[in-house]
Amino acid sequence: MKDLRQRKIELFQQNNKDKARLLISCPDKPGIVATVSEFLYEHGANIIQSDQYTTDPEGGTFFMRVEFTMPNLSEFEQKLESDFSTIGESFKMDWHFAYAYHIKKMAIFVSKQDHCLMELLWQWQAGDLVADIAVVISNHPDLGPTVEQFGIPFYHIPVTKETKDEAEEKQLKLLEQFDIDVSVLARYMQILSPKFIEAQPLKIINIHHSFLPAFIGARPYERAYDRGVKIIGATSHYVTDDLDEGPIIEQGVQRVDHSYNAEDLKRIGRSVERSVLARAVAWHLEDRVIAYKNKTVVF
Amino acid sequence: MKDLRQRKIELFQQNNKDKARLLISCPDKPGIVATVSEFLYEHGANIIQSDQYTTDPEGGTFFMRVEFTMPNLSEFEQKLESDFSTIGESFKMDWHFAYAYHIKKMAIFVSKQDHCLMELLWQWQAGDLVADIAVVISNHPDLGPTVEQFGIPFYHIPVTKETKDEAEEKQLKLLEQFDIDVSVLARYMQILSPKFIEAQPLKIINIHHSFLPAFIGARPYERAYDRGVKIIGATSHYVTDDLDEGPIIEQGVQRVDHSYNAEDLKRIGRSVERSVLARAVAWHLEDRVIAYKNKTVVF
Amino acid sequence: MKDLRQRKIELFQQNNKDKARLLISCPDKPGIVATVSEFLYEHGANIIQSDQYTTDPEGGTFFMRVEFTMPNLSEFEQKLESDFSTIGESFKMDWHFAYAYHIKKMAIFVSKQDHCLMELLWQWQAGDLVADIAVVISNHPDLGPTVEQFGIPFYHIPVTKETKDEAEEKQLKLLEQFDIDVSVLARYMQILSPKFIEAQPLKIINIHHSFLPAFIGARPYERAYDRGVKIIGATSHYVTDDLDEGPIIEQGVQRVDHSYNAEDLKRIGRSVERSVLARAVAWHLEDRVIAYKNKTVVF
Amino acid sequence: MKDLRQRKIELFQQNNKDKARLLISCPDKPGIVATVSEFLYEHGANIIQSDQYTTDPEGGTFFMRVEFTMPNLSEFEQKLESDFSTIGESFKMDWHFAYAYHIKKMAIFVSKQDHCLMELLWQWQAGDLVADIAVVISNHPDLGPTVEQFGIPFYHIPVTKETKDEAEEKQLKLLEQFDIDVSVLARYMQILSPKFIEAQPLKIINIHHSFLPAFIGARPYERAYDRGVKIIGATSHYVTDDLDEGPIIEQGVQRVDHSYNAEDLKRIGRSVERSVLARAVAWHLEDRVIAYKNKTVVF
Repeated sequence: MKDLRQRKIELFQQNNKDKARLLISCPDKPGIVATVSEFLYEHGANIIQSDQYTTDPEGGTFFMRVEFTMPNLSEFEQKLESDFSTIGESFKMDWHFAYAYHIKKMAIFVSKQDHCLMELLWQWQAGDLVADIAVVISNHPDLGPTVEQFGIPFYHIPVTKETKDEAEEKQLKLLEQFDIDVSVLARYMQILSPKFIEAQPLKIINIHHSFLPAFIGARPYERAYDRGVKIIGATSHYVTDDLDEGPIIEQGVQRVDHSYNAEDLKRIGRSVERSVLARAVAWHLEDRVIAYKNKTVVF
Repeated sequence: MKDLRQRKIELFQQNNKDKARLLISCPDKPGIVATVSEFLYEHGANIIQSDQYTTDPEGGTFFMRVEFTMPNLSEFEQKLESDFSTIGESFKMDWHFAYAYHIKKMAIFVSKQDHCLMELLWQWQAGDLVADIAVVISNHPDLGPTVEQFGIPFYHIPVTKETKDEAEEKQLKLLEQFDIDVSVLARYMQILSPKFIEAQPLKIINIHHSFLPAFIGARPYERAYDRGVKIIGATSHYVTDDLDEGPIIEQGVQRVDHSYNAEDLKRIGRSVERSVLARAVAWHLEDRVIAYKNKTVVF
Repeated sequence: MKDLRQRKIELFQQNNKDKARLLISCPDKPGIVATVSEFLYEHGANIIQSDQYTTDPEGGTFFMRVEFTMPNLSEFEQKLESDFSTIGESFKMDWHFAYAYHIKKMAIFVSKQDHCLMELLWQWQAGDLVADIAVVISNHPDLGPTVEQFGIPFYHIPVTKETKDEAEEKQLKLLEQFDIDVSVLARYMQILSPKFIEAQPLKIINIHHSFLPAFIGARPYERAYDRGVKIIGATSHYVTDDLDEGPIIEQGVQRVDHSYNAEDLKRIGRSVERSVLARAVAWHLEDRVIAYKNKTVVF
Repeated sequence: MKDLRQRKIELFQQNNKDKARLLISCPDKPGIVATVSEFLYEHGANIIQSDQYTTDPEGGTFFMRVEFTMPNLSEFEQKLESDFSTIGESFKMDWHFAYAYHIKKMAIFVSKQDHCLMELLWQWQAGDLVADIAVVISNHPDLGPTVEQFGIPFYHIPVTKETKDEAEEKQLKLLEQFDIDVSVLARYMQILSPKFIEAQPLKIINIHHSFLPAFIGARPYERAYDRGVKIIGATSHYVTDDLDEGPIIEQGVQRVDHSYNAEDLKRIGRSVERSVLARAVAWHLEDRVIAYKNKTVVF
């Protein structure tokens, strides 16, 4: 199975060997688009897709994502970046080039529930989610065999109140060892410490099983049932120090009615969670998400 | 215009002259459906639609709505109810017959915004909302001319902190005078007193401009914008003492993205509010909604 | 893995050992609900859920689904059915009792694409889809190893124009051998012969990769792309002689825009197909679907 | 009422006095974005929003919409266009500048049904739809009084098979007289002649009461009912010679079930039609729609 995936990844890299995305945030002022597109044109790039957004044309923040191709791009990465740095400085940009053929290394954190994990693994296997899923980490051993069937290393790191610090150190060491770019909490039922989060800012994606900011915190489906809502939802967001308050990447909903009990809400919710998380992760992998303040721009 | 509406109502009454709905809530136990359907059969009724729900077959609460026709029903209302009362007692039912040809008298409360009011008036004029809209009450004079174009009396009752008690007394007097069955708060931007609400339990329908319980309270669209949600919504509910906490009748949502500012959210929200409120009011008018605890069963 | 599933099925059977559904279609006339509910009450049954629908209270067709529990039901199946047969005759009913603890035996037909198959297998493994998936049949060998990982027999029966009759005979023999109740075509890219279909009326469920009746026939995503539609969909239906014209059980849709090419539509479509087919199959397994003419009633 | 609207339009023009959109279609090749954004920058324009799409980076068609502000724009319209024409020529562009403060003149065609007309009039009155609705034309007199209440001229031009040519001539004369930019068929139940359509290419927007290409032609709700679909929809498109085959601008859907009869589908459909048409018209007015072949790009 691993070989097939390896071949798929190589095929993807081959098909995208000249493709990159340039991501920019900066204070808005006239001339940004002209300067950036002129720069790309002069460097022989062909723009495939370009999106931009400004919070306010006068004095707001400007965001841009440009997807382009450039012949023999991999040989020119350094030159491109060094040439662009003067533009970046003059406009006070936060910028980076993301090369499509550099496949992102992903870690998945799970507890006992498998539905979000399985959706990711499955889309990954189908080639719909392009990532290098390098490791799965869990505070329970249950999903080990499933994960290993996919040829992915599985680490069982139990977490108790007493061992939490130690466990997080082990986890961080694994993230370092596998050179992880992004961590996905696929219904990982543990609250991460500020220290852990700060070590990987905007690199941890969570799925919360409610339509935030409704039902922040624990047991959202039971509380949705008690409140008698007619629609339930799920929210995928970057993890920050504030529990369930990080920048929202994607949300999804599903209609329910009085005849659904809390178990039904959970069952339906699982399906919403799966698709919301998978979309959020895919957009992150395609460099479509820019976080600012407590929000996201999704291009 | 009034005559046309009058003719529509008369036509509706003619078409529904033998139609009624029986609504029941009671402790669940075997034999309820058998007893009720046997009763209706013996009284010559033909069941058109029957819905039921139990919170728990063992010791839960049972809800039922039966829509039926019965020849010359209007002559037998009293007999039907008196005959049914023994069944009602033996099963400890909360029950009532609602006759489709008794058109409900409605009051609408508004402030300055017209979109929810207009949706109701318009659906009413089109014959999609079958009610007798007897009066519109507002704390501002602005919508008077619009309402009067529809041939409906409009009362401007200003409300200030000082005059609130007095204003509510005037409002209650109007509700009595017009023999109102249901009041709809169509973006009426005033908080009603417990006294006012208790005078008409489960007879006041509100539209809240957020997907409750997210953004309870004031300025929900601004807060939705600040939170960066990807979906906004509206909620229609019965008004109880607890602000924005009454039983939810209906909710609706609409996708948004980072490019929508607070004004855009309001504009899109208006469209969601209109349709959610209109659905909730229609269901109430068709006797489809049974409230229990802080929830609703919508058949 | 098989033992876990076996235990889940046994647990389900244990939890549902006294539960059944009575399904009825008949000419509408007064007294049906009263007679049926009286019958169930006298036999000691407790109604959990009851749904009904009539195409026309006067002279139309009446449909009913009653879910009930009855102590020691499995010992009384025969008595129940023989007692009910007189009622059935007098109302000219098409009726049957479906016992929840009799798990339906399912066959899945696939070609090379795995997404619909995997969704079914996965929901089945999670216990969300209660069936005994007895066999998977394919005209290609590709998905054999995947299926066998789940402990399910996989039969590769190649189909060519020349061998089609012979292949269908082999398939029918397998359906008989495994005592199959329902066959699911999970993107099985072959047209079945009338003979094959007639052998199992309303027992074959298909997923069509378009929002029928739009794009009947082959290559629907390519045609949706060419037409520039703004929403794509999928349709699950019972298979009849008329290609893509059988009674629709469920449909689902997803918004798209000009930037999606035909491959994107396929990718998004896969996700719609998965969920639509899984819902349709679940409803069939729970005896919620009654077909009449070329439509379905879904209770 | 007219004065209020006039003041709203003037306020809009004041708020948008320096805003325009540049719309471009041309063969894709490197350098377009750079050239266009450089041009705008040099002319002192500030880009607010820029969207682009290419059917294929190599040899496809490129589409672009740039929204920008420029101080004292109204004085520089001619210079801007004459300066841009050399760029337009060198890239073989189809291009035009649309100035936000030039309010588009709209004609609405109706028959007897008022729901789509009313939605447009209402959104227009609320200031959500920025157009100059100059005239309403109908083949029936019924909606005259309603339209005139809004202070809009209403012309009753009956259409029979015999008088169709003559009627269309009258209509075209009115369109000319009122200097109409866009005509909206708000459930105008007449088929227009090729001659009429060709006189205003891509300037006529229709609402079709089905989810095209399902149920092309007459009586779509009846046919949707007969087919037993589980979702109904509406489609807004530019009118071309091919009935119901013009480029689709927007579509919307709503779930239904077996209990909805054809009248219910029509009632629900009216609500879908209203919102789909209003969105399509708004996008056209904001110069967001570019038609090519038989499709649209909606920015």
